[in-house]
Amino acid sequence: MSAIASAHAAPLVAPRVVALVGVSDGAGKLSGRPFHFCRQHGFTGQIYIVNPHRDTVLGETAYPSVVAIPVPVDHAYLLVGTGLVEAALDDCIAAGVKVVTVLADGFAEAGAEGRARQARLVAKANAAGIMLIGPNSMGVVNSGTGFVCTTNAAFKTNGLLPGRLAVLSHSGSLIGTLLSRGTVRNIGFSHFVSLGNEAQTCVGTVGLTLVDNPDIVGFVLFLETMRNSTAFARFSAAARRLGKPVVAYVLGKSREGQALSVSHTGALTGEAAAVGAFLRHHHIAEVSQLDALFEAPALLLQKPRLVDRPRVATVLTTTGGGGAMLVDQLSLRGVALTGLGPDSAEFFRQNDIPFGSGKLVDVTLAGAQYDVMKAAITQLITDATTGLLVVAIGSSAQFNPELAVKPIIDAVAENPGAAPVAAFPLPHAPESMAMLQAAGIPAFGGVESAADTIALFLADDMGPDDMGPDDMGYEEPERMAPDVAQKIAALIAAHSSGAVLDEVDAGNIFTGLGIAAPPAVLVADKGLEADDLDRVLDAAGVAYPVVAKLISPDLPHKTEYGAVTLNIMTGDALEMAIATMRTHVARLAPHAQIDGVLIQPMVTGLGEALVGFRRDNLVGPVVTVGAGGVMAEIYRDVAIRPAPVSVQTARQMLDEVKGFALLRGYRGRPVGDLDALARLVALVSQLAAFDAIAEAEINPVLVQADGVVRLDALIRLGDENGALHG
Amino acid sequence: MSAIASAHAAPLVAPRVVALVGVSDGAGKLSGRPFHFCRQHGFTGQIYIVNPHRDTVLGETAYPSVVAIPVPVDHAYLLVGTGLVEAALDDCIAAGVKVVTVLADGFAEAGAEGRARQARLVAKANAAGIMLIGPNSMGVVNSGTGFVCTTNAAFKTNGLLPGRLAVLSHSGSLIGTLLSRGTVRNIGFSHFVSLGNEAQTCVGTVGLTLVDNPDIVGFVLFLETMRNSTAFARFSAAARRLGKPVVAYVLGKSREGQALSVSHTGALTGEAAAVGAFLRHHHIAEVSQLDALFEAPALLLQKPRLVDRPRVATVLTTTGGGGAMLVDQLSLRGVALTGLGPDSAEFFRQNDIPFGSGKLVDVTLAGAQYDVMKAAITQLITDATTGLLVVAIGSSAQFNPELAVKPIIDAVAENPGAAPVAAFPLPHAPESMAMLQAAGIPAFGGVESAADTIALFLADDMGPDDMGPDDMGYEEPERMAPDVAQKIAALIAAHSSGAVLDEVDAGNIFTGLGIAAPPAVLVADKGLEADDLDRVLDAAGVAYPVVAKLISPDLPHKTEYGAVTLNIMTGDALEMAIATMRTHVARLAPHAQIDGVLIQPMVTGLGEALVGFRRDNLVGPVVTVGAGGVMAEIYRDVAIRPAPVSVQTARQMLDEVKGFALLRGYRGRPVGDLDALARLVALVSQLAAFDAIAEAEINPVLVQADGVVRLDALIRLGDENGALHG
Repeated sequence: MSAIASAHAAPLVAPRVVALVGVSDGAGKLSGRPFHFCRQHGFTGQIYIVNPHRDTVLGETAYPSVVAIPVPVDHAYLLVGTGLVEAALDDCIAAGVKVVTVLADGFAEAGAEGRARQARLVAKANAAGIMLIGPNSMGVVNSGTGFVCTTNAAFKTNGLLPGRLAVLSHSGSLIGTLLSRGTVRNIGFSHFVSLGNEAQTCVGTVGLTLVDNPDIVGFVLFLETMRNSTAFARFSAAARRLGKPVVAYVLGKSREGQALSVSHTGALTGEAAAVGAFLRHHHIAEVSQLDALFEAPALLLQKPRLVDRPRVATVLTTTGGGGAMLVDQLSLRGVALTGLGPDSAEFFRQNDIPFGSGKLVDVTLAGAQYDVMKAAITQLITDATTGLLVVAIGSSAQFNPELAVKPIIDAVAENPGAAPVAAFPLPHAPESMAMLQAAGIPAFGGVESAADTIALFLADDMGPDDMGPDDMGYEEPERMAPDVAQKIAALIAAHSSGAVLDEVDAGNIFTGLGIAAPPAVLVADKGLEADDLDRVLDAAGVAYPVVAKLISPDLPHKTEYGAVTLNIMTGDALEMAIATMRTHVARLAPHAQIDGVLIQPMVTGLGEALVGFRRDNLVGPVVTVGAGGVMAEIYRDVAIRPAPVSVQTARQMLDEVKGFALLRGYRGRPVGDLDALARLVALVSQLAAFDAIAEAEINPVLVQADGVVRLDALIRLGDENGALHG
Repeated sequence: MSAIASAHAAPLVAPRVVALVGVSDGAGKLSGRPFHFCRQHGFTGQIYIVNPHRDTVLGETAYPSVVAIPVPVDHAYLLVGTGLVEAALDDCIAAGVKVVTVLADGFAEAGAEGRARQARLVAKANAAGIMLIGPNSMGVVNSGTGFVCTTNAAFKTNGLLPGRLAVLSHSGSLIGTLLSRGTVRNIGFSHFVSLGNEAQTCVGTVGLTLVDNPDIVGFVLFLETMRNSTAFARFSAAARRLGKPVVAYVLGKSREGQALSVSHTGALTGEAAAVGAFLRHHHIAEVSQLDALFEAPALLLQKPRLVDRPRVATVLTTTGGGGAMLVDQLSLRGVALTGLGPDSAEFFRQNDIPFGSGKLVDVTLAGAQYDVMKAAITQLITDATTGLLVVAIGSSAQFNPELAVKPIIDAVAENPGAAPVAAFPLPHAPESMAMLQAAGIPAFGGVESAADTIALFLADDMGPDDMGPDDMGYEEPERMAPDVAQKIAALIAAHSSGAVLDEVDAGNIFTGLGIAAPPAVLVADKGLEADDLDRVLDAAGVAYPVVAKLISPDLPHKTEYGAVTLNIMTGDALEMAIATMRTHVARLAPHAQIDGVLIQPMVTGLGEALVGFRRDNLVGPVVTVGAGGVMAEIYRDVAIRPAPVSVQTARQMLDEVKGFALLRGYRGRPVGDLDALARLVALVSQLAAFDAIAEAEINPVLVQADGVVRLDALIRLGDENGALHG
């Protein structure tokens, strides 16, 4: 953790002296809420109210400015209107305040003027070493100390449940929603930070500030965007090192949702799939059910119990239909389910405990007896073939907690090294839920939330086996040799920013990376007759049949302009093909600059792939791979990862692409060299090191039985030609 | 409704005299529950306990048999063990009981012996005119009369909420889950029927029995299977005629879930997609979130308000993040969202009500004022461009219901002809929810349930415009001409049951239906030389290039046996091709019977389709259509409907198939004749009329710019050769 982060940790969430700037009188006023909430929830720190127009506000002395406050202020919450924020910040700077939170909107989300206003705030805060939360922030809450410094009306609630989860949310209203919905589920939160526009700080930097706080065992994120993926990655790595799970709900999975993110907080949009891949890569558990946001952490905290156990779930139930519903939802999410292992089956039989048939262990009414249920659970969690045990409890959870959940609690307590256990009461059963929670047993209020979380818990990439401080769970991508990097940087430097590199220039870069193309000859596009062409090809060692393409920086998708001819058998045909292609282009793209004709031998393969690289607005460099051809395009059948990736990760990506079934021996077809394709994907992903490259594509890569062949190449440089990564 | 159904309606859910057979003493006994629950919930009918071994049970007189009960019994619940059920049923028959419900398991789900036992029960009940519920039924409940005749422990709850929804469930435990979860959402149910094994009655017949009960405004189904799709279709048609929505949650969407259905209640499995298509066809709202099962009916009851309104949603909110979350979830489910129409935008501007930008109408803090909120809602619901108005309410829902929901309630009450309104409070807000419900305004506890339901509400095929008693919302499939039907029946009758009809015989049936193939010649597979072949083709008007296929009932997938040769240019090549194909088949399928060689002209098209027909185990005849080729197969890109379908429905099916993008002019490609393909699909679906046909396939259908061509044909007859439908 950086020194700056730790210096701001206390004033951010545990200030001793707080200034509330711009509080006005009147019972229903928004600006009075932080004061009332702090009082209501027993904040023992000092609160100073700043209002230059009055002597007292809400019965308290009002100070004309923060500077006038007689003691040093740790944290100021600016509740003034947009136009007064800058002056108030100046005041805070003069007074040496450490953390300033800003409520007002009208900044980055409000056009050019707002953006300029926001930039000025950040410049001032940075210069003064102040941590700035917001603008557009509904404040900061520490449930443990009663520092409930927020305008969110939900905190009017009587008594905040104690909790050990910190909520970081782009949306201010959602912190109230989570408080309210968590409370009814008996789940409390230690902290809430409403991040707003993230002008200076962001979810990553605030997370880093809080990550080693011993009152926090896990993080709950409500994300509308991702403004600083580097800080986010650092935060998630730190959380993982400390064994603190991070669960995220991401807004903007849909086009309309993305559009709202933009108008709502002035955020950029990225591709939902890229954001999802980024989160998975950084071991963030992304949930799709809102309730899973607060229900998932308890189970994820049990990860260490899964060490050396198979990634499977066993569902034990007293209620067939309810258990079947859970099995169905788990199976839909790809969770591997097991029934009883041989030892457990023997135990159930010897003890006359029914267990049904198939993948659901249904003890039926026998489960209404404490001894039977406890024996069954004890057997299952001490069986080495059990991964996670999930108990789906019927109506007894509602009226007989002593029968329904006591055996679970006791069996877990008596077997500390045993398999993890989660519970799902079918009915609404608050008493059972509270007992389970008190005993540290994760419980779920809905079948969808349970299934979502269990799927995340058992997913391979979230495992404890790769959870050590030095092992981030990924085979490190290969490092590029320095001479290769230098050579490629030089090739890039030859082009101006924004340039689109054609197949020849882009091809040179790919060749430099180690991705060679078939032999090729570049000839001038006019004046060459059949005999000349034959001679040139002969000299270059290119034999018929050949493929010919017009080379132009203006024709990124050549086939659409009729600028590619396949399977040319003779010099005459080649001469004619070149002429025909020129006619096409002259008609369809009359201003296209033609740099020549590229001639290569026809090569055949078992299938095609499309490999791409680009910089996502939100999460930075990503590499993609999909099956080639128009059908794969229609089905959007693509795997995506943050770049660079290792060969191992690239291989996993190929497994995700359904269309590659054709290359895996589908219906007796010959098998393609997917290992070679994975090596190519890993090499393409190395382009991440060159900031200047905005986008690159090889389409198609021909996959053969033994090896792959690059058949095309395209690179687009960014508008600002950056430097090689450090 | 049938006379039988109406005769059983009262004894099923409103009996005056009830016999509980096999109740034993002891506080915790399962068999005592129905008695205790009826007393607890104030059942005013007479209850008689039958137990031949005792004089009194639970302080009541115990009768030795049902026959010994001094008054006629309407409804008997048999709580005896499996082995005693038949005798108890005999007793009920002798006593003239109208409805008998059976708790015991050990019937169809328990092997051959259990199936025989179940068949005997049904035969006896049928002979006696008794309505049989179960076996494996947890009973029947009428919340209104206190007839809580169930063993489900959840009914121990204090006071059943009044309600107007009837629950029909295959799973007995789920009736308790729904009771409990509905209650906490303030949603009550009028009736519960636990259907168990559905030996005699099923969800359809019980639904028909209850459908015109005035205490019921809608149905909630928890389905594990579908045993009688004809009865189900009749029930759903009746419910639709009466304007009573039917909402269903279907277990067995996953492979594991299906396996459990089989072991759990002895059900068959069908394809999840076929079941889904069947439910949609019959206007059943299938939900994927459990909570939507009881939350959806209230909104679906508002369907009449949607008449003449666009199928779009407008989201109004006081809380940006929460509103954005709802917009995101709606958009993900394909719901069309609109912001303010021109009139409403003008109104908001004139009244200085903020409305944000884009598709979310965010009134921000202005919405905390009653007058502002009421004016905004009134404007929106009286705007003709509004479809459904959804109000996403922030923290005020929790603490200020008078501000949060009162304006909604009043605006709706004052504008009876206006657009429908639904509400989604972001926080847990029971008081607001209760107020909304009392006012008849649908409200949702979760964003996922809200989005699921709204998507169903706005879906085209669920619309009120096609809700009249005589218009079931579908263009009727064309009726086959009688002579066509007779001709096809004769062609089928020429084959024995279980037969696989080859391209020639199957082709004749398709030709009879009106689906012609290109001209073709069938020649003996040996002895013909090039010259002979030329002469035969010439005589038949088949010109080179041609395609040749070996015809055999043993080779349903010819290409896998090398039994198809394309693009043959001359007689010599044809002779060689036939010899080569025979060699292939001799090696790969030496025992295949070869009936000849089919020779057709090569035809080309813009793309291929695969059209299939089959009888699903659960829902009967279905027709499918997908894009041709191996990629479409890998992506399972298929549309499915109950057969037969109209041409209009077939056209909708084609719109669902992503792969047909290639035939819709994708990236400038030529457009295929999808109307002709739709006509072909509708014709294939007519095979539903012939019970003997189990399965049929045309793979591929060639789609041309003008017309379609059938290139292959396959029909499999069922194991029992049935008759033509009546």
